[in-house]
Amino acid sequence: MFIDRLIESIIKKNNPTVAGLDPRLDYVPEYIKEEVFKDYGRGVEGAAEAILRFNKKLIDAIYDIVPAVKPQLAYYEIYGPSGIRAFSETCNYAKSKGLLVIADGKRNDIGTTAEAYSAAYLGEVHINGENIRMFDTDALTVNPYLGIDGIKPFIDNCDKFGKGIFILVKTSNKSSGQLQDIVAADGKTIYEKVAELVDEWGAGKVGKKGYSSIGAVVGATYPEQAKILRKIMKKAYILVPGYGAQGGTAADAVHSFNDDGLGAIINASRSIMCAWKSEKWSSKYGEESFDSAAREEAVIMRNEISDAIAARKE
Amino acid sequence: MFIDRLIESIIKKNNPTVAGLDPRLDYVPEYIKEEVFKDYGRGVEGAAEAILRFNKKLIDAIYDIVPAVKPQLAYYEIYGPSGIRAFSETCNYAKSKGLLVIADGKRNDIGTTAEAYSAAYLGEVHINGENIRMFDTDALTVNPYLGIDGIKPFIDNCDKFGKGIFILVKTSNKSSGQLQDIVAADGKTIYEKVAELVDEWGAGKVGKKGYSSIGAVVGATYPEQAKILRKIMKKAYILVPGYGAQGGTAADAVHSFNDDGLGAIINASRSIMCAWKSEKWSSKYGEESFDSAAREEAVIMRNEISDAIAARKE
Repeated sequence: MFIDRLIESIIKKNNPTVAGLDPRLDYVPEYIKEEVFKDYGRGVEGAAEAILRFNKKLIDAIYDIVPAVKPQLAYYEIYGPSGIRAFSETCNYAKSKGLLVIADGKRNDIGTTAEAYSAAYLGEVHINGENIRMFDTDALTVNPYLGIDGIKPFIDNCDKFGKGIFILVKTSNKSSGQLQDIVAADGKTIYEKVAELVDEWGAGKVGKKGYSSIGAVVGATYPEQAKILRKIMKKAYILVPGYGAQGGTAADAVHSFNDDGLGAIINASRSIMCAWKSEKWSSKYGEESFDSAAREEAVIMRNEISDAIAARKE
Repeated sequence: MFIDRLIESIIKKNNPTVAGLDPRLDYVPEYIKEEVFKDYGRGVEGAAEAILRFNKKLIDAIYDIVPAVKPQLAYYEIYGPSGIRAFSETCNYAKSKGLLVIADGKRNDIGTTAEAYSAAYLGEVHINGENIRMFDTDALTVNPYLGIDGIKPFIDNCDKFGKGIFILVKTSNKSSGQLQDIVAADGKTIYEKVAELVDEWGAGKVGKKGYSSIGAVVGATYPEQAKILRKIMKKAYILVPGYGAQGGTAADAVHSFNDDGLGAIINASRSIMCAWKSEKWSSKYGEESFDSAAREEAVIMRNEISDAIAARKE
């Protein structure tokens, strides 16, 4: 079951964080690009191979301290078929290092089409009598706007293949309230109503530690809403974006945890990937040691989150 | 401007319909598969090439009568990088035949990530000083759950590159009401509120015929809601799924048109792609003439929709 594997890894590494892999070409050190462009050219193929190598070195630097990575599909789709190959190989490499992989695609469609997405990311693709695992991902982010029949095909494969989903509830961006904060006739907001659905949909999928493989996304940038949502979705694991570059602090993110110290996993992307470019690390590390800067940043994040959880308990 | 090109083609072909390209391997005639599998094998590559050849023959059969095609990304992603190549080449082939291409991806994310999706499908990807057009698509379907800052990056490229988007308002599936029909404190439903936003976001993007390149998706399976939505979003072009296999009739779909006979484009996927397998055509056409069956079905659909629009005017 996805959620048990995730919690086991979080406990083992004492680290409820996930490293976002949202690579842009300008995040990649020049020496990697030069090396790759010699063999693959300076076009789409070279770009895709450069982000793949960058990802692999990042994974090498952090796989023993973080439980999971979260590649964001948009940054791979942008390079077409070559980009999707880089996504796929990034997932394979992360898995080979014992990491869990959460694909961030926010996919959504009507039932029969959602089945195709679900097969690609969580299940198996049937081709001429063979069952093929297309992308080696453990979980996928999904958008709830279409209701349960857009979600059920994903839940079915969570059951069948031990996978997970994280359903958007309250997103980290500034205008998330435009739709999500609308107050319904019964006094509840849309994000609360979606949270009630997430709680209902995940009820039967609870693992050993009392959490469900049907999780939720709640941005660190909305701590007050996170407090409310934590209570509505008691069994949902909450994926928390918006920490770091987007402005969410450890003290903000901590509201998505339960009193057992579990229940949430905090994502950081740019702060880790671009650590080597930041004022904080650029004097200590040159571009050749971008991976060491990423590791230092990942350790700091782990400690900040752990300290904030401990401080909250006291 | 996208919307002017779309309307021009609809008028020229006297046909407000779009052919969905949602190919599954079991829709593809055996003779195409056998031919392809000999060269590409019976695995993922063979499957992707088979749906590409199927798409091309379908396009050959209907390009002079339909204004646009709508490939559904899920059915290409399911075959990984090879599938994305098939998607890309399908788009290129459709464009070479003068068709407009609406990518159905229902993409959504926060601003910076939405920029990456927007670059891939509507804009340009910048690699080492070159600006590359990744997918040759004219429009993309998008999901509004994140509010305007998840939509603006798409609108920006609509402006810059003459492209369009169709924003999900009321989807065709059974459970679409679970979220979309929630009634807000002011008495309006969520789908009405999203429609108001679509109207607002598209206001400045109106072309020669009075329609905006910022369109909407409203399912043919909800004719009563379509009547209301047509009035709220007077300038939005409405993409109407759910006709045919999903149960929507021409009489249902017609409510998304304005009195000028414009304002909507009706999608059919399975009924055209699988015409050759249907009771209606299977005795007249064998699998070798699946494309003729698709053409007959596309003509019937055109006539049904035109008749329904005319009947409504009387």
